[in-house]
Amino acid sequence: MKTLCVALGGRSYEIHIEAGLLDRLGEYVAPLGPRKCLLLSDSHVAPLYAQRATAALQAAGVTCAALVLPAGETTKRIGYLEKVYDGLIQAGITRSDALVALGGGVIGDLGGFAAATYLRGIKLVQVPTTLLAQVDSAVGGKTAVDLPAGKNLVGSFYQPHLVLIDPDTLATLPPRELSGGMGEVIKYAATFDRDLWPLLEGTEHLEQVVLRCLDLKRQVVQRDELDTGERMLLNFGHTLGHAIEKAQNFEGYIHGEAVAAGMCLMTRITQARGITREGDAQRLEDMCRAWNLPVTANKALWPAMAPALNQDKKHLAGGLTVVALEELGRGKLMPCPPHMLEEVVSWLR
Amino acid sequence: MKTLCVALGGRSYEIHIEAGLLDRLGEYVAPLGPRKCLLLSDSHVAPLYAQRATAALQAAGVTCAALVLPAGETTKRIGYLEKVYDGLIQAGITRSDALVALGGGVIGDLGGFAAATYLRGIKLVQVPTTLLAQVDSAVGGKTAVDLPAGKNLVGSFYQPHLVLIDPDTLATLPPRELSGGMGEVIKYAATFDRDLWPLLEGTEHLEQVVLRCLDLKRQVVQRDELDTGERMLLNFGHTLGHAIEKAQNFEGYIHGEAVAAGMCLMTRITQARGITREGDAQRLEDMCRAWNLPVTANKALWPAMAPALNQDKKHLAGGLTVVALEELGRGKLMPCPPHMLEEVVSWLR
Repeated sequence: MKTLCVALGGRSYEIHIEAGLLDRLGEYVAPLGPRKCLLLSDSHVAPLYAQRATAALQAAGVTCAALVLPAGETTKRIGYLEKVYDGLIQAGITRSDALVALGGGVIGDLGGFAAATYLRGIKLVQVPTTLLAQVDSAVGGKTAVDLPAGKNLVGSFYQPHLVLIDPDTLATLPPRELSGGMGEVIKYAATFDRDLWPLLEGTEHLEQVVLRCLDLKRQVVQRDELDTGERMLLNFGHTLGHAIEKAQNFEGYIHGEAVAAGMCLMTRITQARGITREGDAQRLEDMCRAWNLPVTANKALWPAMAPALNQDKKHLAGGLTVVALEELGRGKLMPCPPHMLEEVVSWLR
Repeated sequence: MKTLCVALGGRSYEIHIEAGLLDRLGEYVAPLGPRKCLLLSDSHVAPLYAQRATAALQAAGVTCAALVLPAGETTKRIGYLEKVYDGLIQAGITRSDALVALGGGVIGDLGGFAAATYLRGIKLVQVPTTLLAQVDSAVGGKTAVDLPAGKNLVGSFYQPHLVLIDPDTLATLPPRELSGGMGEVIKYAATFDRDLWPLLEGTEHLEQVVLRCLDLKRQVVQRDELDTGERMLLNFGHTLGHAIEKAQNFEGYIHGEAVAAGMCLMTRITQARGITREGDAQRLEDMCRAWNLPVTANKALWPAMAPALNQDKKHLAGGLTVVALEELGRGKLMPCPPHMLEEVVSWLR
């Protein structure tokens, strides 16, 4: 059992990581004080784990209702948010009760936003079951739903009250999802921590890797909760990655794949400009390839990527800031020079 | 010109009160830094004031798009929230831009929630045009939308960045709306401030009354932002009031009328129980009657009120706390004794 404590905005919460934790959810949730909870999950995860989670909660005296939504990014919409509110009302959830989000990033983001806004905030327990959610989205307090105009355009900063990670759940993850999660892991290693690099060679260090990524994220978020400075480093690969996802209508690369391609493409650009140490673009690509992650995207996407880059949410903030590697293990924020992102064209295939 | 400063959660904002302020909106909004804003208003207020507000903002260099929604409580729903998000996107609003909510409580609550959640929070300027919004809903950071199951079930705590009050807008307020606002004013006087009482005899002190109520609310909210203690005193009259509104399907009393009836009924109950000083129930009723406010409700409503009382949002918090007067000018929180609220039956007519 490993425990990390995250202290934010006058409140703190714990992250517990241990194999088999799923069967002991109740032991950790009950001390938070809820009499009831709504277990939110999706059609992929629920058949695997919902029954064990529910049983563990009930055994600890927490009455548990379950709501299962369709798996997939299209669930992260306002229409499904209303279904979550309905579920909370049907279950009689009060301000002192909890929403338990059991699943990947979509369930965590959507459930987090519902918990942040129902009765102006109820207790939120994140139980991430994908690598991507475990190392990234379940920690840090960003909740979101998508609008037709773009991903994550609506949301709030709302820290969970507890995060429970059972690494055993990774065993049932489809290989492509595991690779996608490794896209975000490689991001942490490339941006913050050269020492993490050798641990990414195989799956035997996975639990240690998850823990290290969480610790990095925790430190960054504690220093910059509201994403106005250092936390933006976590966006490495995301500006180009989002543009690729959008150009593919979210039906091509999964998120971690798009991030991998975005990181590699950005580093090709910055290495050519002398910002990144020579050779590191290749090293980054080699690592991504080893995990079956793409290192570029189809040139035919460019006409659709260009407008997406202009509408990027970070761009909306006025004056695009991008993340570039100085070398592997050290990222930096820089104002995007005019037309720099357009150079991506020469690296698309 | 009067200015109050509200300091909350490491951030502070100003409330400015002055006749004619509507024509100088831009002078106050521009220094907050937005390049663009969305002016949100409703079909009653927009024809009266939207053009002046827009002109004032444009004159100060703030590009201004307008979105006008139907007037009325039914606009405070998720369907209209989506329209506000659409409007923000169409107007190209970024994280450093603003939403200006020009109207009463519905526009302020809905616009406030949209501003709190679009891009995880943009700048929010409240320009309340009704007495109720000026003394109550525009200050304190409670934003909300209704669900089919009840009022204000979804929302967030999000402090505005600026509140601008032009008392001249009260001149166009329908008399019933002015009386409704006086319901909340009487609440402040009854709960907190006996000295306010003599100023409520006519309309000549209205600006002073608004200022005093705002100052009271500011102090309470600064001491208890998240509504877990003293701030609950502001709910005086609201438990019974909400039940009446709900029993009438929100088509009978307007909010301030329901609050007035709720305060008078609660005080009849507590005076009969020896909690409230003898005679003060009558004094409270006299003041409400002087403002054409109801002091009770129809006995036929009881069968519909009873379940509404059980579903009260504060009740959902587990263990209902109610507000009772010890005497005029001094309210207190008390756990609701079993069956006390049922005694309201004998005071319905």
